[in-house]
Amino acid sequence: MDFQFLVFDYVEELDLVGSWELVGLLAEQKQCSSPKLVTLNTMTPVGEHGMHFIADVHFSEAEAPDVIFVPGGSGSRIAMEDPSVIAYLQEQSKCCKAILSVCTGSFLMQKSGLFKGRRATTHWAFLNHLKEDPDVTVVEQRFVHDGNIWSSGGVSAGMDMMLAFIAYSFGHDVAASVQLSAEYFPATTIYGRPFERRDISEYIRVLAQNA
Amino acid sequence: MDFQFLVFDYVEELDLVGSWELVGLLAEQKQCSSPKLVTLNTMTPVGEHGMHFIADVHFSEAEAPDVIFVPGGSGSRIAMEDPSVIAYLQEQSKCCKAILSVCTGSFLMQKSGLFKGRRATTHWAFLNHLKEDPDVTVVEQRFVHDGNIWSSGGVSAGMDMMLAFIAYSFGHDVAASVQLSAEYFPATTIYGRPFERRDISEYIRVLAQNA
Repeated sequence: MDFQFLVFDYVEELDLVGSWELVGLLAEQKQCSSPKLVTLNTMTPVGEHGMHFIADVHFSEAEAPDVIFVPGGSGSRIAMEDPSVIAYLQEQSKCCKAILSVCTGSFLMQKSGLFKGRRATTHWAFLNHLKEDPDVTVVEQRFVHDGNIWSSGGVSAGMDMMLAFIAYSFGHDVAASVQLSAEYFPATTIYGRPFERRDISEYIRVLAQNA
Repeated sequence: MDFQFLVFDYVEELDLVGSWELVGLLAEQKQCSSPKLVTLNTMTPVGEHGMHFIADVHFSEAEAPDVIFVPGGSGSRIAMEDPSVIAYLQEQSKCCKAILSVCTGSFLMQKSGLFKGRRATTHWAFLNHLKEDPDVTVVEQRFVHDGNIWSSGGVSAGMDMMLAFIAYSFGHDVAASVQLSAEYFPATTIYGRPFERRDISEYIRVLAQNA
């Protein structure tokens, strides 16, 4: 299975790298090819917080992947203004096994019509924006899987989605092995009182109230 | 406060970027300067899983930081063979406010003597190696704070450590805000039966048994 990680100027760094790490460990275990960093614009994109990356290939020259991963960041709203980017996502979606988006990667998904008729989610601060689209059923979960479309909440939520995708696609034993390698047994500490916010995703309210 | 993130060939990508994201969000909230990527060897290091980065500056030309962040990856065991790297860490440790290491960043810490007389931890698969050092008190927690030295378990554990460091240094309100921005309310799903392993870190055994 080939994984293509999209990247662009002003990508949110952890959106991209959290899931990259898990797929990298999957590749280390010979379950898939090494992931590729496929740029939608410059070959040396800069992240939202100033980290500089070097892409492997431009999307116009990339081979068709089995899985496409779409991170967020303010750059997703710039990249989506390029019609050739939207055409690429629409074309690839017809044949690839799955497309997964994190955070405001939702803007690229929505603009390409990939959320049409689907249940989907995004960063809690952008739920209201996504709800304005009558063709999308917005769910306030950490991640959601609907057919070949997966989507997650903001930034760190992509890791929970990717681990679930690995369990779904490769089995629980493989997911267990990746989870161990990444030592992904996160703390559940909640700072402050996020459940008091009206605009927070429902799953966070439930988590925080039960904490 | 200035954060310096060390990088080197064969750095574990998430070790580096998980905490970078949290400090990036801290900088976005004007609580610190933008973090800098400071290389210990090449200016274009490649990650353990093939992601390519561009460093901001070589350590020999970097300004003295307030906080140094030391990621792991197989490259930490290569970087530690350079005496000028070890001298740099020893020199900086005398004046900086804190040094935080993730995963096998522990090799760089230990070789520089920064764990001497301290409680410290590392990736579960390297606990036994660290225990061979009579000068280090190894604790099997997700992360540990001893004076100006912080250390965490493997890969993803660095994020929990960095969020705790932010809470300790900037207060719980700031940590709450960073946690919200990163939507860091991770799932607690455990795949497989890690608690059956004898070599796992104690905190994972406790978590898994209580799940």
